[in-house]
Amino acid sequence: MGDANFRRELGQQLRVDSVRASDAAGSGHPTSSMSAADALAVLLDGHLRLDYAHPGDPRNDHLIFSKGHASPLYYAVLKAVGAIADDELLTFRTFGSRLEGHPTPRIPPTDVATGSLGQGLPIGVGIALAGKRLDQLPYRVWVLCGDSEMAEGSIWEAFDYAGWAKLDNLTALVDINRLGQTRETMLGWDTAAYAARARAFGWHAIEVDGHDVDALDAALSEARQTTDRPTALLMRTLKGRGVAAVEDQPGKHGKPLDDAAAAITELGGERNLRVEVAEPAGSASPHEFVVEGAEMPSWPVGEQVATRLAYGEALAALGSMRPDVVALDGEVSNSTHSELFANAHPDRYFEMFIAEQQMISAAIGMQARGKVAFASTFGAFLSRAYDFIRMAAVSRADLRLCGSHAGVAIGQDGPSQMALEDMAALRAVHGSAVLHPSDANQTAKLVEQMADRRGISYLRTLRGKTTVRTEPDEPVRIGGSRVVRASDHDDVTIVACGTTVDEAVTAADELAERDICARVVDCYSVKPIDAGVLIAAARETRGLVTVEDHWPQGGLGDAVLEALAEQENTPPVRKLAVYDMPLSGTPEELLHAAAIDAAAITAAASALLRQAEPVQA
Amino acid sequence: MGDANFRRELGQQLRVDSVRASDAAGSGHPTSSMSAADALAVLLDGHLRLDYAHPGDPRNDHLIFSKGHASPLYYAVLKAVGAIADDELLTFRTFGSRLEGHPTPRIPPTDVATGSLGQGLPIGVGIALAGKRLDQLPYRVWVLCGDSEMAEGSIWEAFDYAGWAKLDNLTALVDINRLGQTRETMLGWDTAAYAARARAFGWHAIEVDGHDVDALDAALSEARQTTDRPTALLMRTLKGRGVAAVEDQPGKHGKPLDDAAAAITELGGERNLRVEVAEPAGSASPHEFVVEGAEMPSWPVGEQVATRLAYGEALAALGSMRPDVVALDGEVSNSTHSELFANAHPDRYFEMFIAEQQMISAAIGMQARGKVAFASTFGAFLSRAYDFIRMAAVSRADLRLCGSHAGVAIGQDGPSQMALEDMAALRAVHGSAVLHPSDANQTAKLVEQMADRRGISYLRTLRGKTTVRTEPDEPVRIGGSRVVRASDHDDVTIVACGTTVDEAVTAADELAERDICARVVDCYSVKPIDAGVLIAAARETRGLVTVEDHWPQGGLGDAVLEALAEQENTPPVRKLAVYDMPLSGTPEELLHAAAIDAAAITAAASALLRQAEPVQA
Repeated sequence: MGDANFRRELGQQLRVDSVRASDAAGSGHPTSSMSAADALAVLLDGHLRLDYAHPGDPRNDHLIFSKGHASPLYYAVLKAVGAIADDELLTFRTFGSRLEGHPTPRIPPTDVATGSLGQGLPIGVGIALAGKRLDQLPYRVWVLCGDSEMAEGSIWEAFDYAGWAKLDNLTALVDINRLGQTRETMLGWDTAAYAARARAFGWHAIEVDGHDVDALDAALSEARQTTDRPTALLMRTLKGRGVAAVEDQPGKHGKPLDDAAAAITELGGERNLRVEVAEPAGSASPHEFVVEGAEMPSWPVGEQVATRLAYGEALAALGSMRPDVVALDGEVSNSTHSELFANAHPDRYFEMFIAEQQMISAAIGMQARGKVAFASTFGAFLSRAYDFIRMAAVSRADLRLCGSHAGVAIGQDGPSQMALEDMAALRAVHGSAVLHPSDANQTAKLVEQMADRRGISYLRTLRGKTTVRTEPDEPVRIGGSRVVRASDHDDVTIVACGTTVDEAVTAADELAERDICARVVDCYSVKPIDAGVLIAAARETRGLVTVEDHWPQGGLGDAVLEALAEQENTPPVRKLAVYDMPLSGTPEELLHAAAIDAAAITAAASALLRQAEPVQA
Repeated sequence: MGDANFRRELGQQLRVDSVRASDAAGSGHPTSSMSAADALAVLLDGHLRLDYAHPGDPRNDHLIFSKGHASPLYYAVLKAVGAIADDELLTFRTFGSRLEGHPTPRIPPTDVATGSLGQGLPIGVGIALAGKRLDQLPYRVWVLCGDSEMAEGSIWEAFDYAGWAKLDNLTALVDINRLGQTRETMLGWDTAAYAARARAFGWHAIEVDGHDVDALDAALSEARQTTDRPTALLMRTLKGRGVAAVEDQPGKHGKPLDDAAAAITELGGERNLRVEVAEPAGSASPHEFVVEGAEMPSWPVGEQVATRLAYGEALAALGSMRPDVVALDGEVSNSTHSELFANAHPDRYFEMFIAEQQMISAAIGMQARGKVAFASTFGAFLSRAYDFIRMAAVSRADLRLCGSHAGVAIGQDGPSQMALEDMAALRAVHGSAVLHPSDANQTAKLVEQMADRRGISYLRTLRGKTTVRTEPDEPVRIGGSRVVRASDHDDVTIVACGTTVDEAVTAADELAERDICARVVDCYSVKPIDAGVLIAAARETRGLVTVEDHWPQGGLGDAVLEALAEQENTPPVRKLAVYDMPLSGTPEELLHAAAIDAAAITAAASALLRQAEPVQA
């Protein structure tokens, strides 16, 4: 097919442009780019099917640089295919440029941001899965991996899942240049060891000289022809290939070449080859699932329902209303109740097993294909994928996460299963929403709104039942709150969310018996929080008690303080939260021990007013 | 050696006691316990060397339940070896009991908490590594893994590292009972596939019938005799083994048996066998490294030094002062500067490659052996191990973490490499300290104090240089702060940390030219924060501006608000932080774009005072 000489020349151009871009920037990773340049040249010329002029074409192949630090090579590719001009190439890493230090979707057709290692491959699994099971299109996913990142467990979650799911539309090109940032990798050039691992995880594996364009061509053809399993190319390469001063040398990671001009000369000088990448074939369009329609569920006020169950019912209904909704779970679907979606829409449910990093990555990959992906597990175990959620924000991904089993209220299972830091972690994700409904009707309405929200939305659900207080037709919105009780002579405000709303209402009753009038605010939207209601409460009452089933840091209490921060003369705010490491016990025992139950709220509100009195007098 | 009949009976006892404990609790995982009971019986009777009466004996073997939900079995073992009485066994999961829903170190000789899957094995790697390279003792580490958790990438990080490090003192017993929480695992009973994976990662692998006590005995003997590599027993088992109502049945995960009495009868009734576990052999004591002594480094005021460099120099000096200090890094030691420790103390440095989960787990394992372990990588990449850090708190572990490359101030590499959520995430870890020094002298003093601090301590360091402002002999303490400038007529307070201290000082100069007198507080200890200094500032000035190179949530600003929360009539606090997704650029461009540079501080302080004036008037 292709011309070997052209491919060699193209490889050299990609090297030269990697050197030039890094030299212009004064930083970057040219040597990590040079090792993979020949593989990319062959991939572009003869294997990739991607219309760079129409990056939104659903039939396009996907190319992911899991080794995101090889961004000079990625941008050199964009120049070679005509997606960017040489001028823009040289804006690499400058302020405002689309060519950031590591790739992001700001430059099309980049699907996702990379740069935290070990993420591109599992995300590629998600895109490949969407291609097979959702879009039902013949596109392929090509992922360039570094050898250093093969030490990341997430890579093996991806190998495991892709092998199990027989994703023959996925190819990993592993750039085995032997040298990491500071030293040789664990496996060095032992491509056979990598191949044995890939095979043990159900992949087809091909060892290949990563600088032999004919061998690469044959290997890529073999990958395309392999059915029933994904393929890994284990490419033996030289870091810094082609420039003696850096080739296979330690200490040359992540810096421009000392003498770029000499290196460019050694590589044969600048070129301006243009490679015609094949366009995707045929006229197929993405499969659309047929939905039968449904009403969102609601529950009568007064009923006792677990919000995790409401999540499952709402998600199942949403799936009946919208064909783009898909769900993933980390093998706890009968706990999170995503099983209700799985039962109703088995074609759009993905069991991701106990591999939270792969689960989140798959959701990221699916949203890159326009799906509205909801991923669920215990809130505690979303912490396993925190780096992936962080990076999803850099990817400008729209993700819907549900973490069940919030807080000490889960009871006997103990602290390993309790989400106690999840609101803090998720609040600190750029552009996120953090939602913690106190009842089933709130939950269903928030699930529906999450589907339309951009960015990362997190819903925190409860294991145990809570009282439905929100009327079925009452407005509930991301950024809103619910004033559970209020008067024009309230003494104190109790701000609660989730399970503590029931406790707050009980406390307000107890306080009323002491002639203390308590306003109760249900901040089901912790981020964005309803600042207006809180500011009014701070003006109209003599102090606030916040109460949450979460560590004291970064959750509801801090969100309330943030909302009030810029006000003058803020009254005192007492944060009730889980200050000590919980044990096992009944939910009631643990809420009491943590001092976040009604008794503790009553005591805190009373104490706050006693403290406040001298100042008021 | 052992008596097969005794072992079978012991296995039945372990099952019966698992059923009894779960029945008494009304919750728990008896079926997941029953599958592994025979393996534990054989391990206890003939292979384990552990003096349960002296859990602190450094020669003891270590037994870790990576499948922590098999806690009923774990506690049944403790009864069988005489470590707990039957009465205590039946306190399982009750409030105050040492026998929590999942094991924690509250019950000796438990090294670490488990219950988040995939953590026990990598922690076992750390303990095994400590045995070989630090303690230099012949103890063995036995880890019981579930088959569902083999989907966790962290398991493969452990396989990878242990194989590479040839940890022949480590044995994984994989309980392949086929059934997860909701369905069959990806590999079912394909023990050959598991074995192929283990071998591909450099392990010796033995497929074995997990209910054949003689075969188990032979396999465990083979594991003990295998040198140069760790061993994995791939044990084919039946979930719920021995009770027809649950044996190999789906839908029987994580709940007590419906008819415990009948099950106990079916298992042959209660027993009170006592197994004499072998004591550790010999009189060896842990190796002590010889140290030559050193002074902690210091730098003259006015010098420009990166705090990451100060970390490396301080850690290297500390290693010369204390033989118990060890360091680990995620293959970025020339960025974090832990390489200075590695160069000075190669025997106590561990290169953990790009596998942050294994790095943190190894540190947890080493601290379980009394080592003072410092683990470092980019702060952004500690997010990869967040679940492990969370669980380390449940383990009551003493961990020292260093995250470099904080914030947008890193510049060109872009957001994937910027720690922007790290303070929020680490503040929300139980018992943690979060330290973000602004200069080299602070850094060195905090490193020294971290070594003596219990719990999880996090040091956040900077890529770029900052001005040394702290005198070498000035007190610096965890929980302290540094008042950079103050007078008795300050108008406004600027609270900064890390790189923003330099910006705050410049801003204070600019404000002085406008006749605005600004107090500057350097909160190098973000948690615990110096509430006294902040409360005084809130009383003595008309407002506070906080400024941090971090997302707005959960970091310095929220910590300041928390410190002031319970005060009456708090003045306004304006939080400057990184509100928009950063790009690549120079540090100066990015600090400016994020509005956390001197100009932004000056503007915010001025605006705050204009806002405050009408109220004051």
